[in-house]
Amino acid sequence: MTQRVRVHCITVTADGVGAGENQSFDRPFGDVDPGELFAWAGATASWVNRTEPGGSRGLDDWITRDFTRGIGAEIMGRGKFGPQTGPWPDHEWQGWWGDEPPFHTPVFVLTHHPRPTLTLGETTFHFLDATPRRAVERAKAAANGGDVRIGGGVTTLREFLDADLIDDMHIAVTPIELGAGKRLWDTPDDLTDRFHLERVPSASGIVHHFFWRR
Amino acid sequence: MTQRVRVHCITVTADGVGAGENQSFDRPFGDVDPGELFAWAGATASWVNRTEPGGSRGLDDWITRDFTRGIGAEIMGRGKFGPQTGPWPDHEWQGWWGDEPPFHTPVFVLTHHPRPTLTLGETTFHFLDATPRRAVERAKAAANGGDVRIGGGVTTLREFLDADLIDDMHIAVTPIELGAGKRLWDTPDDLTDRFHLERVPSASGIVHHFFWRR
Repeated sequence: MTQRVRVHCITVTADGVGAGENQSFDRPFGDVDPGELFAWAGATASWVNRTEPGGSRGLDDWITRDFTRGIGAEIMGRGKFGPQTGPWPDHEWQGWWGDEPPFHTPVFVLTHHPRPTLTLGETTFHFLDATPRRAVERAKAAANGGDVRIGGGVTTLREFLDADLIDDMHIAVTPIELGAGKRLWDTPDDLTDRFHLERVPSASGIVHHFFWRR
Repeated sequence: MTQRVRVHCITVTADGVGAGENQSFDRPFGDVDPGELFAWAGATASWVNRTEPGGSRGLDDWITRDFTRGIGAEIMGRGKFGPQTGPWPDHEWQGWWGDEPPFHTPVFVLTHHPRPTLTLGETTFHFLDATPRRAVERAKAAANGGDVRIGGGVTTLREFLDADLIDDMHIAVTPIELGAGKRLWDTPDDLTDRFHLERVPSASGIVHHFFWRR
């Protein structure tokens, strides 16, 4: 089986915003409320961060239940790991996820600033100064035959799209419009020269966008 | 994790027909053309019977890729295994799937007529004379913690629905109307007293019906 590079459950607003400015330790998505952005996913039975029983088993659940399946490694931008910029002041910050992050694979955090590898539960964070292409090579080698998920944020995802490294992609689009923030795209139609695009509205109000290479 | 009883990728026509009369060794679906019924699934990259590379990765693929995941056992009606009725004339018939059936789990074939257990590849067929409730108990015990899939045909599925044994269910509805054949339902709305129902039209022309318990 060929290893694929995939995007999964990235959620953006109708105007393409995936995160706000002014990220801080208290606000991983900055001025954007992630509860609002990810309400569709949180309502499903299979959402990776669900802690209580229950949840829907409609279309949205078929999407969230696949979040970890077949994934052997993730690549994320530094901003997904934490709000710091520049050299790491210390190594006390270990991400937003506590002792058992929901990745359960090697995770490559892209940063120009070196830091020792960090293992939390079943997840190992490697801090990597590399181009998107080189990062994909490293992640594929570490993925034990599995696929590589580009985990975001949207700025990182744009870089991987610009480098034409994505094989297929699921983006959830909420009906909210924000007007400002970090954008994934001006319009998803900009990608249709390279990708098939299927739009599927869900009962939750979001529209699933499925992309796969032409 | 609670073991669930699930239905997956059963396909029926707009008038609820899942198979035709006049089943034979050459025509597992009788007067209904399975190629027409399952064209949507066959076009996906992940369909369990796909033998060549390629295929779509849109919505339909998110459905077919989940066909085996988390499933620890299947229960099927005798008619899904073969066209014979009454006592088995011999044990030469081994189902429609060749040496490596696509189940890879224990499969319980409901029949009043005893027959020795049959192992083909990773699939073991047990021939079971039991009520739906008892069959689910047996299948759960054999599923190694996994879920139980009710594999059809539609007559068998109706019996499990009548016995209220299904937890959640995916049915694909094609736009074809046949007028005659074995029906799953008069209308899916008959089930909404017990189940949530979400209908999701796909670009392929079929409408995915997702049911889960209220």
